[in-house]
Amino acid sequence: MSKEHRPKARVAKGFRDIGPDEIRGVRRMLATIQDVYEAYGFEPVEQPFIEYTDALGKFLPDQDRPNAGVFSFQDDDEQWLSLRYDLTAPLARFVAENSQKLPTPYRSYRQGWVFRNEKPGPGRYRQFMQFDADTVGSASPAADAEVCMMAADTMEALGLERGQYVIKVNHRKLLDALMLTLGLQLPDVDGTRLTTLRAMDKYDKLGEQGVRLLLGKGRRDESGDFTKGAGMDEAAIQVVMEFLQGVVFSVPGAIVQPRDNPELADMKGGIFIQNPPTLSENKRILAAHPLTIEAISEIDQMRRLWESAGYGPDRIKFDTSVIRGLEYYTGPVFECELLMETKDEDGKTVRFGSVGGGGRYDDLVARFTGQQVPATGFSIGVSRLYSALKLVGKAEEVAPKPLVVVLVLDKDRQGDYWSMVRALRSENVRAEMYVGTAGMKAQMKYADKRGAALVVIQGGDEKLKGEVQIKDLRLGSELASNIASREEYAAQRLAQFSVAEADLVSAVKKALAQ
Amino acid sequence: MSKEHRPKARVAKGFRDIGPDEIRGVRRMLATIQDVYEAYGFEPVEQPFIEYTDALGKFLPDQDRPNAGVFSFQDDDEQWLSLRYDLTAPLARFVAENSQKLPTPYRSYRQGWVFRNEKPGPGRYRQFMQFDADTVGSASPAADAEVCMMAADTMEALGLERGQYVIKVNHRKLLDALMLTLGLQLPDVDGTRLTTLRAMDKYDKLGEQGVRLLLGKGRRDESGDFTKGAGMDEAAIQVVMEFLQGVVFSVPGAIVQPRDNPELADMKGGIFIQNPPTLSENKRILAAHPLTIEAISEIDQMRRLWESAGYGPDRIKFDTSVIRGLEYYTGPVFECELLMETKDEDGKTVRFGSVGGGGRYDDLVARFTGQQVPATGFSIGVSRLYSALKLVGKAEEVAPKPLVVVLVLDKDRQGDYWSMVRALRSENVRAEMYVGTAGMKAQMKYADKRGAALVVIQGGDEKLKGEVQIKDLRLGSELASNIASREEYAAQRLAQFSVAEADLVSAVKKALAQ
Repeated sequence: MSKEHRPKARVAKGFRDIGPDEIRGVRRMLATIQDVYEAYGFEPVEQPFIEYTDALGKFLPDQDRPNAGVFSFQDDDEQWLSLRYDLTAPLARFVAENSQKLPTPYRSYRQGWVFRNEKPGPGRYRQFMQFDADTVGSASPAADAEVCMMAADTMEALGLERGQYVIKVNHRKLLDALMLTLGLQLPDVDGTRLTTLRAMDKYDKLGEQGVRLLLGKGRRDESGDFTKGAGMDEAAIQVVMEFLQGVVFSVPGAIVQPRDNPELADMKGGIFIQNPPTLSENKRILAAHPLTIEAISEIDQMRRLWESAGYGPDRIKFDTSVIRGLEYYTGPVFECELLMETKDEDGKTVRFGSVGGGGRYDDLVARFTGQQVPATGFSIGVSRLYSALKLVGKAEEVAPKPLVVVLVLDKDRQGDYWSMVRALRSENVRAEMYVGTAGMKAQMKYADKRGAALVVIQGGDEKLKGEVQIKDLRLGSELASNIASREEYAAQRLAQFSVAEADLVSAVKKALAQ
Repeated sequence: MSKEHRPKARVAKGFRDIGPDEIRGVRRMLATIQDVYEAYGFEPVEQPFIEYTDALGKFLPDQDRPNAGVFSFQDDDEQWLSLRYDLTAPLARFVAENSQKLPTPYRSYRQGWVFRNEKPGPGRYRQFMQFDADTVGSASPAADAEVCMMAADTMEALGLERGQYVIKVNHRKLLDALMLTLGLQLPDVDGTRLTTLRAMDKYDKLGEQGVRLLLGKGRRDESGDFTKGAGMDEAAIQVVMEFLQGVVFSVPGAIVQPRDNPELADMKGGIFIQNPPTLSENKRILAAHPLTIEAISEIDQMRRLWESAGYGPDRIKFDTSVIRGLEYYTGPVFECELLMETKDEDGKTVRFGSVGGGGRYDDLVARFTGQQVPATGFSIGVSRLYSALKLVGKAEEVAPKPLVVVLVLDKDRQGDYWSMVRALRSENVRAEMYVGTAGMKAQMKYADKRGAALVVIQGGDEKLKGEVQIKDLRLGSELASNIASREEYAAQRLAQFSVAEADLVSAVKKALAQ
């Protein structure tokens, strides 16, 4: 093929290849999560990667245009197909299609790759893995509380310590009450409600000043791009900020302790509501709103369950700053935040942040059937969680067994070398015969690049003597790094020794055990 | 949402949902394959699901139109992207992109879903899983022999017995020699060569008569569809048939034993070639063709290695009927055939057939770099292999631990019920609290549908007495199936007993152990 017709070998934009360390580390992480979910009695189920576009719907965050964010293509019969963008929408389709066969409630878990047709950025890929657990068919706050407790248990099963993570819980109906109080409509006719939610969702990232701009006239970022704001006046912005900061509603243990706030008086089941007489008119309406009362009651039922089960606010807590980007949530929303510090893109020290979240989505199945089927779930961002575990040293690679490479010094005797490999393997030693075509030097280089522990060498001389040489590459490189003089160099020979052919397996096992 | 605007809940055409039994069974199967590949010293690596269309190329079987068979879509920057249709083309891209960092030879394995934009049929899906192992960077037949032996070892590790499987090996250069002898061109200008290969590939499925028609004028199938033939004359068709049937080349242990054929005389390293003087002109040219001699020499090197390692023709054998559909093969081609019998779509008894295959593809990396990088590999069709293991009873579901469901009789006491679940779980019992909102009867039905082993019940009366009831659903249903009279019905009560609250965990463990 002439050069100009050759394709360039490059991974597609926003995608990446994954190497052995991460594969082995993630493999163990997934097995641990799975063990927790199985212990809770959740059942595995998997949906395909491709669904009819209309069955997935469009509930992505930060996407206003139809189908933006989703990889879509037309089938032969002109129906539109899409790659799944999460694991929740396909589950809703599955439950709607199979509800007769499933137990109620239906508690299931699944793990797999999802795809977003978005602009990639540093650490932001267009293919990533999620691990979800969902309870479909129960409106009880016990179901919400359960997935939160399961998420907390999962973090500890993965090796995180108390204080390194927290599950934060908010309620979409509190947000709805806030929106209605501020005069925003439901459903969201002009998009102002969505703009407001997205602005609030950026509180962790942009801080108070950034969010105030996004709630007001708009914000210009460092790159000069301008994001139009929600157009609120100062009084409304103030209510939103106090809501986010936990001044309006809070529970003991929340970031902002309302008990320290002299404005607070009333307390319902551990959740504080500001004393209406001292409140502004807006906040008084908000605190007394029927949606507020419904939300507070549900959060309180969850709280009682997790408290009686011994999950204190150091593990699960109410936090009004949790928003969640996906549009389909209708009730409690959760976020799992990791509290240990890391550096952001600019080298600034920040909290690691969210590694998963979820919430109640009571309308997703009704999209198909017309009948509301209550549902709640939690989704872990697998790659992000893996990065976090690496950061705190809890993702030690599951090192493969040490490798033994049998060199091929005489091509006509490959059968003999192969027999050595088989003998080693039959005793559970990870072993291979060099299957390339290069000479001794390249073979040693190969073994080194593979990170082999030992190489086994048998040339003509050794064969005559009925011996094999075993070279310990670990010992060799250890010695080499300490070599100060020519005399010491001789010591490196220690790393190589001969044994009788019949003793190969026992000698290798002995060397590996050192 | 009004009814006419509701999407229908249906899985997309050619795709499927996967339930717990298959997920657990496949999970164990994949772990077993992985263990074998790791023991051989292969390293895991994963490529993304989406690649640039030009990087994947088009090497699918049975696809004449560009991009047919592949799901493709245009990116924002107008570059074409495709879902991977196998795991080999992405690996070639990866190696071409990262060759400097990789050891030579580079032995790797990967497992994942691939997609084909084809007409679905019974048992034929548009998303399926493959498990591949490849050696890139070695031209040695030892590399080919190794993947064949590894495939054979994998079948036995999965529980198949000697005689239930066989790895069949052929060589593309033998096929090339055949084509050239018959006057077909290389490269394949008018497509006749591909038509001929496809006709030969159908030998197992259509038998001699069907293939003769496809090599000649064409064949009309049962449905009335006509497939145009390769247009060969009778003499040429006869040579192809004898080639397929192992009359021209064979080794001891092949399906057709050439030793029993009086026409045979010459033998090279265990591979028989017909005695030229008694051959037709075509066959004489074929037997003496330089490509034939090259291919026979390589097959023979492989044969010597697998024979010295103790793999007899009952495990790996030369078989000229192996063609393989993918166009990119350049050397030895392999197929893993399962020999146990099953029923085909028409209820006819047939061999189970192929569950995987592979071969040498020396030109795939050169597509990018211009430099030939020899490579060989083997791919397992995961779903087909799983079906086969089920057929022979070697895919026993990895049953989850028995489940205990704690019923909720008093909603206000969910905290207590939750504590029971936690106590059970802390002793490694798989337990859950019912998280729905229904009454006692529906809860029992739920436990039954979940296949729970035990339910734990504590109503007001039991609470007062400090007791819990344990109901053994396994025992109950066993007794129920034997109940002949009203008297015996009383015996069913045996399946239910009370214990002190403090003894819950030990009583449950004792009941589960029975």
